[in-house]
Amino acid sequence: MRKVVLIGVGMHPCGKFLDKSLKDLGQVAIWNAIDDAGIDAKEIEVAYVSNCVAGLITGEENVRGQRILRAAGIGRIPVINVENACAAGSTALRGAYLEVASGLHDIAIAVGAEKMFCGNTSREVKAIAANADLELLATGVQFTALYAISLKKYMKEYGATPEHFAKIAVKNSYNGSLNPYAQHRTPLTIEQVLNSRMISDPLTLYMCCSIADGAAAVVLCTEEVARKHGSKPLVEIAACELGSGRFRPEYGEGPDLTELVAEDAYRVAGIPPEDIDVAEVHDAMAPAELLLYEELGFCKKGEAIRLIDEGRTKINGDIPVNPSGGLAAKGHPIGATGLIQVAEIVWQLRGEAGPRQVAHPKVGLIQNRGGFIDGDDAASAITILKR
Amino acid sequence: MRKVVLIGVGMHPCGKFLDKSLKDLGQVAIWNAIDDAGIDAKEIEVAYVSNCVAGLITGEENVRGQRILRAAGIGRIPVINVENACAAGSTALRGAYLEVASGLHDIAIAVGAEKMFCGNTSREVKAIAANADLELLATGVQFTALYAISLKKYMKEYGATPEHFAKIAVKNSYNGSLNPYAQHRTPLTIEQVLNSRMISDPLTLYMCCSIADGAAAVVLCTEEVARKHGSKPLVEIAACELGSGRFRPEYGEGPDLTELVAEDAYRVAGIPPEDIDVAEVHDAMAPAELLLYEELGFCKKGEAIRLIDEGRTKINGDIPVNPSGGLAAKGHPIGATGLIQVAEIVWQLRGEAGPRQVAHPKVGLIQNRGGFIDGDDAASAITILKR
Repeated sequence: MRKVVLIGVGMHPCGKFLDKSLKDLGQVAIWNAIDDAGIDAKEIEVAYVSNCVAGLITGEENVRGQRILRAAGIGRIPVINVENACAAGSTALRGAYLEVASGLHDIAIAVGAEKMFCGNTSREVKAIAANADLELLATGVQFTALYAISLKKYMKEYGATPEHFAKIAVKNSYNGSLNPYAQHRTPLTIEQVLNSRMISDPLTLYMCCSIADGAAAVVLCTEEVARKHGSKPLVEIAACELGSGRFRPEYGEGPDLTELVAEDAYRVAGIPPEDIDVAEVHDAMAPAELLLYEELGFCKKGEAIRLIDEGRTKINGDIPVNPSGGLAAKGHPIGATGLIQVAEIVWQLRGEAGPRQVAHPKVGLIQNRGGFIDGDDAASAITILKR
Repeated sequence: MRKVVLIGVGMHPCGKFLDKSLKDLGQVAIWNAIDDAGIDAKEIEVAYVSNCVAGLITGEENVRGQRILRAAGIGRIPVINVENACAAGSTALRGAYLEVASGLHDIAIAVGAEKMFCGNTSREVKAIAANADLELLATGVQFTALYAISLKKYMKEYGATPEHFAKIAVKNSYNGSLNPYAQHRTPLTIEQVLNSRMISDPLTLYMCCSIADGAAAVVLCTEEVARKHGSKPLVEIAACELGSGRFRPEYGEGPDLTELVAEDAYRVAGIPPEDIDVAEVHDAMAPAELLLYEELGFCKKGEAIRLIDEGRTKINGDIPVNPSGGLAAKGHPIGATGLIQVAEIVWQLRGEAGPRQVAHPKVGLIQNRGGFIDGDDAASAITILKR
């Protein structure tokens, strides 16, 4: 397998854009990425496109990627449309990575685009619910409830309090206020987070990410191609791992899927968790970030609350997490999220993150998950990038 | 890239199964393929799953593959959900192929499953329409009309008649009558085909394939793994090419996408068209098969009508096409079709096709296409298999 580098990343901001279509969002991200890569669009040999809910929002369920690429003026190449719920973006990245790593192609693009606001709330809610089993939803268990269950368990075991959870939301809202691509750019206080409407105890409104329209694209290639084109620092894909749940019948048993996939990613990259300088993690519910500190090995079991109390995961901390503001501040355009996370880590590793830049990172991690089946993640993806 | 072989194929029959779910269909195909491969399900390292319309039929738009695999008792492996309209099955095959060819994994499974009948005709029609651009549909151009336009053109240029088109449907209905997996198993006469209801001149009802529920799965692995397991003849993937349209503004210009992708496939396989012993092609509208004889290089331009007149593409002809009965007889479970075609060619190459077995084939071709954008195919896939 060949070394694969990222030479271009691009985004369309996250937000509510009722006057824009999926194609409008996608083509902006594509052209920003191509522009950033400094290549000619004609050089792109293969595309992976992730989108999760267009079928439910507009009824355009098929060949969405080709539609988006055509809007961007790109045709005649193999297009692979992928979906993996909220981990779809990472799945697109992995596909594009494999095309280049295998030697089949030299330049690939991964695109994630999602149009979630359509002016019809019932359709929007139905689209979000597609994440979970219909059988599960029939019992009334929404995925907020699944998160709440694991948080309750964590509170009981390790003494975490709602204040700890609120601190994550506060940190991420501050980071998001520095991110021009974020949907929510107002820093929140602990009081505001705790006093916002209760969604599923202990989750309050401001701990939950919102839906968003948005898109991201990344251009991948061989090191050789990259050296011909860009003057920017090369960012290498050191690992790009994907797994699915054991789909255990009883929630809470066995090791967490994220831990298993992280173990694989660290092994493949040959990089231990203590060498991660910056991370973007999947805070669909902000407090999940706390549990992820442990699952990703940033600290030992039960020590996550100390990490947040001591401010070590802030932008100026020693292990900054979600400098972009995370899903909580940016919003969560499902099929785009994984690639939005990648864009942030690339900007961080290149030192291009502006006011939210962390100090001289060399290695970054992206954790992205999607879908629930029997209380386990349907898809869990961990990518490690290095300069 | 390593050599990749198919060691197991399995299907759920095509038909109308109102009492069965997508999972019911998928798990039968998976277990039939695993059983045929003679491996333990636990040995499967990665899965590609293609489904196109579950979001529109049941609302379960996300992580469909994981749901199907879980029903089959499979978890903990990377699952990549792919979609490419009617070419989704071939796209899943290509993904699984790349995993093994690249050296990333040794055993992969590609699964295609589609549940199209749901007892709600309006939903079923909406699901089929997802193939084409909504903007195009708004003009009243259904994909039957797009096929009809190209057939009219062919009639004018080469003197083809409705009788020629009917002969394809007659041949395929006879082949389908020999296939226990086919939805329609009654041989038709030329008169029956020509006198059936006009859908879009020159297309009559019996020239058009029907929707169907159905599923197929194939197990792929390295030659080394295959030699350890099976006693059956090895079938190798000689080429697995995918392309998308140029999305030209005016229909009819430039070389056909199928020709370009076929050219790639023949080059990659190192096998010329005259060495193809048997083919399964995408006869969503039976007469399309006639045009495909030329696009795939089975004969020169304008000679296809002689091929069908002389019976050379019948099961006992010198270049048998659609011995399975094609989409016209089998039905067209969108996301499964590409893999159903693969299953047929594997059975043919192994000499396991029973009454529809063609004589001693060594090389088989699968042509699969999906989606329309600006009158061009959104996805076009050609796979060449050899013993």
